[in-house]
Amino acid sequence: MTNPEQKTKETASTSRRKFLQAGTATVGALAATAITSVHGADAAPAAGDPNGPPNIPEWMKQPGADVGSQTYGTPSPFEKKVVRNVPKNLKQYTSASSRTPLQELDGIITPNGVFYERHHGGIPEIDPAQHRLMIHGLVEKPTVFSMDDIRRYPSESRIHFLECSGNPGFEAIYSKTASDLVGLVSCAEWTGVPLKTVLKDVGLKPDAKWIIAEGADAAALTRSIPIEKCLDDAMLVYSQNGERLRPAQGYPLRVLLPGFEGNMSVKWVRRLHVSDVPAYSREETSKYTDSMPDGTARQFTFYMEAKSIITRPSGTQKIEKGFNEITGIAWSGHGKIARVDVSTDNGKTWQSAKLQNPVLTKALTRFRFPWIWDGQPTVILSRATDETGYVQPSFADLKAVRGLKSFYHNNAMQPWQIAESGEVSNANVKA
Amino acid sequence: MTNPEQKTKETASTSRRKFLQAGTATVGALAATAITSVHGADAAPAAGDPNGPPNIPEWMKQPGADVGSQTYGTPSPFEKKVVRNVPKNLKQYTSASSRTPLQELDGIITPNGVFYERHHGGIPEIDPAQHRLMIHGLVEKPTVFSMDDIRRYPSESRIHFLECSGNPGFEAIYSKTASDLVGLVSCAEWTGVPLKTVLKDVGLKPDAKWIIAEGADAAALTRSIPIEKCLDDAMLVYSQNGERLRPAQGYPLRVLLPGFEGNMSVKWVRRLHVSDVPAYSREETSKYTDSMPDGTARQFTFYMEAKSIITRPSGTQKIEKGFNEITGIAWSGHGKIARVDVSTDNGKTWQSAKLQNPVLTKALTRFRFPWIWDGQPTVILSRATDETGYVQPSFADLKAVRGLKSFYHNNAMQPWQIAESGEVSNANVKA
Repeated sequence: MTNPEQKTKETASTSRRKFLQAGTATVGALAATAITSVHGADAAPAAGDPNGPPNIPEWMKQPGADVGSQTYGTPSPFEKKVVRNVPKNLKQYTSASSRTPLQELDGIITPNGVFYERHHGGIPEIDPAQHRLMIHGLVEKPTVFSMDDIRRYPSESRIHFLECSGNPGFEAIYSKTASDLVGLVSCAEWTGVPLKTVLKDVGLKPDAKWIIAEGADAAALTRSIPIEKCLDDAMLVYSQNGERLRPAQGYPLRVLLPGFEGNMSVKWVRRLHVSDVPAYSREETSKYTDSMPDGTARQFTFYMEAKSIITRPSGTQKIEKGFNEITGIAWSGHGKIARVDVSTDNGKTWQSAKLQNPVLTKALTRFRFPWIWDGQPTVILSRATDETGYVQPSFADLKAVRGLKSFYHNNAMQPWQIAESGEVSNANVKA
Repeated sequence: MTNPEQKTKETASTSRRKFLQAGTATVGALAATAITSVHGADAAPAAGDPNGPPNIPEWMKQPGADVGSQTYGTPSPFEKKVVRNVPKNLKQYTSASSRTPLQELDGIITPNGVFYERHHGGIPEIDPAQHRLMIHGLVEKPTVFSMDDIRRYPSESRIHFLECSGNPGFEAIYSKTASDLVGLVSCAEWTGVPLKTVLKDVGLKPDAKWIIAEGADAAALTRSIPIEKCLDDAMLVYSQNGERLRPAQGYPLRVLLPGFEGNMSVKWVRRLHVSDVPAYSREETSKYTDSMPDGTARQFTFYMEAKSIITRPSGTQKIEKGFNEITGIAWSGHGKIARVDVSTDNGKTWQSAKLQNPVLTKALTRFRFPWIWDGQPTVILSRATDETGYVQPSFADLKAVRGLKSFYHNNAMQPWQIAESGEVSNANVKA
C-alpha cells in the first residue's frame, strides 16, 4: 500500500490505518526526498515501493490547461450541481424565481453566478450606453442621467444581503433543502452612489414623501419607497462583488434598499418619480401585502426581520456519528446580528453559536457551532437575535399572530430532523 | 424633446437642459400617471408628446430572458472586455500569469471569474473524490486526508488578498494600465480549516521547523513554509467567495498564507511534509529570491509589503474637467491599512483619502478621494501606510536600496500623468 492518494471513499481513520500499515519505508523515503531534493513529484515514484504503482495522480503527469485558457473563469466540471435551483414545470418562467444553493456555499459572499433571481417580466438585455435614469416629480431640477453621469458621482461599497419577501411562503415550509426553503436570500458587496447624494443634486421639494422607482423590464416593476429610506442608506448600484451587475441583477443600474424586501430594490431602474403619495402599484397592493386573520392586510411591510437557518447539516445531507460542525447564516433587515443560538435537542436547550467576523449591518452573518452527535435521532435548529433585541420566532408563534392567509415575511426558525441513519430532513411535517 | 431616455452621448447637464426645454407638460403628465396609476411604462407613451416617439426602450416591449435560463449566471454581453488580461505572444502558456482587470472593478472583492492566475505547470483538472492530502514527516501520526475528511473539520471564513511577488517586476513599471502593472493582486472571502487545527491532530514533533507544501500540478510546485506561519493564520482552503475554489485557484484544496507572496499559498495541495529544514526548492532558490546590488540575494522574503494604486482614473482612461473621484486599492501583508494619502500635484502635497469600511487585516482596502480637476496637466499618485507604521516607498527610494537586479517585491508608488486632454497615462517613463 504505497499509493494512498489513489484510493477513494475512505475516511481519514481508515486511510490513516492503511497508510501506517504500509510501514515507515514510504514515509521515510518521501521525507528524504523532501529534504534533499526539490520536486517531490519527480522523486516520489522512485521513493515509493518499486513494485507498486507510482505515487503520482494522472493530472500531474502532463501539463494542465493553459494560463488564460479561460479569460473569464468558471467552476470545476465536478461542481456542476452547484447552480441556481429553478422550479420545475412552471407554466411560465417570465415571472418566477430561482434560488441560491445555500447548502453548498460557505462564508457570507454569494458568488454572482448563483445569486438568487426574481423577475416579473424576464431579464432584459440593456445596452448601458442607451440606458437612462430620469429623476422627476417633486424636485427642483428634473434630470436625465446617463450611466457615465452616474459613475461620476462619489461612490461607496457595502456588503448587504438581499431577500425576497416570500422566502419561503407560509405554505412552503415543507420543502426538502435549505435552498428550497430560503434560497431567495443572497449577499454581495455592492458599489454605487448613495441615493441621497443624487437627490441632493436634483433638489427635493418640501412635500416630497415617496419616491416611486420604475424598472426598465417588460413588467416596468414599480415600487414606492419612503423618502426617509431614500435619504438614509439607499443606493443606486452598478457593481456587485467587484464587477458590473449581472443582467439578472439589474444591469446596468438598480436600486438597493438594505434590509428591505428584495422587490423594492428595483432592478434596471429607469425612473425615480418623487411624489407626496405612494403609487399603490400592483406590487404593493395585490402582491407583497400580508393578509391577516381578521381579513385586513398589512401593507408597506418593508423590513425583512431577523432570521437564520442551519445550512450544514441540512435537508438531504447525511452526517456521521461524532464531530460535526453545525453552520449556517443569519441576517436582519434592522441591523447587525447580535447572537445566534443553536439547539440540538429540538428547542429544549440552547447554546450560543460563534459568529464569524466581521459582523456587518444588514449582511449575512455566518455562525458555527461545534457538535458531537451521539447517533441518536434528534432535531437541530437555530434562532437569531438582532441588535434591536428582536428574536426570530418559531413557526407556531408566527402563525399565532399572522394566521395562515399570509404569504410573505415568514422568518420562522427552521428545524432539521436527524435520523438514526444520519440522514437529515425537514422536521416541518404537514399535520 | 419628450424622449430623453433614447438619447445617447449626452452628459447630465445637456440632457437636463433639453429635458427642461421640453417644458413642464411632460413632467406634470408623468407625475399624474404615477399618482393615479400603477405602471408608468404603460401610461408613459400617452403621457409624452403624442407626436413624438413612445417613451419606452426596446427591451421593455417584450418579456426578457426566462428566469433560470442561466442556472449559473454570466456577465452582460456588454461587459466582454472585463476579463483576465493575458499577455500576448508568449512562447508557452503553461508557466505564465494572467491579470485581474483592476481598473474595471469596484469595491474590494474580486469576482472569481477574473481572479488573477499564476501557474507553473498549467491548470490540472482534479477529481475531488480522488484527491488526497498527505501530512507526514516530523509528525506523530502521518495521515492521508480525503476532501470529506478536510470538510469535516471546524471551518473559518476570512477576506484576504493574494498577490504574486512579481507584481510588477522591477523592469515592468512602464506598462499602460493598472492591470498591466499590478493586476497580479486579487481579494476574496476564503473558507477552509485553520492549518493549526489539522496539525494539532497529526501531532507535530518538537523539531518541526518547516512545512514543505507540494501541489498536485504538473510542476509539483513546492514551497517551504515556516512553522510559525503554519501555527498562526495559515489555512487549508476549499471555498472562495462562497463557492468551491475554481480549478485555476487550486480546486479542490489549496494552502492560504495571508500576507505572504502568492506562490507560497500552494494550489492543488497534495502533500505537507513537516521538516526541520526548508526544501530549498526551485521556487525558493532559482526563483522568488531577490538579487541585491552587492551580488547576494535575499531569500525567504515572504511578506508582501504595504502598497496601493489608484485604479480610477488610471492609464488609458480619460477624465473631464471638474469633479472626479480618485479611487483605488491598498493592502499590506503585515496587517491592516492605517491610511492612504493621495497627491494630485506629483507628490508635492498629500491629503488623506477616505478608507471604505470594513478595513480588514491583509485584505484589499478601497480608498476614495474627491478631486476637482482644474484642467491643467498634473501627476496623481497614492501612498499607503500600514498599521506597523511602514510607508509605501517611491520607486526611486526602493531602487536606492534594492538596485535593479531585483525582480520581485516591488511595492513602489504608481504615478499617473493627466494630460490637458484628460487622457491618463503611466508617469513612469524610461530614461
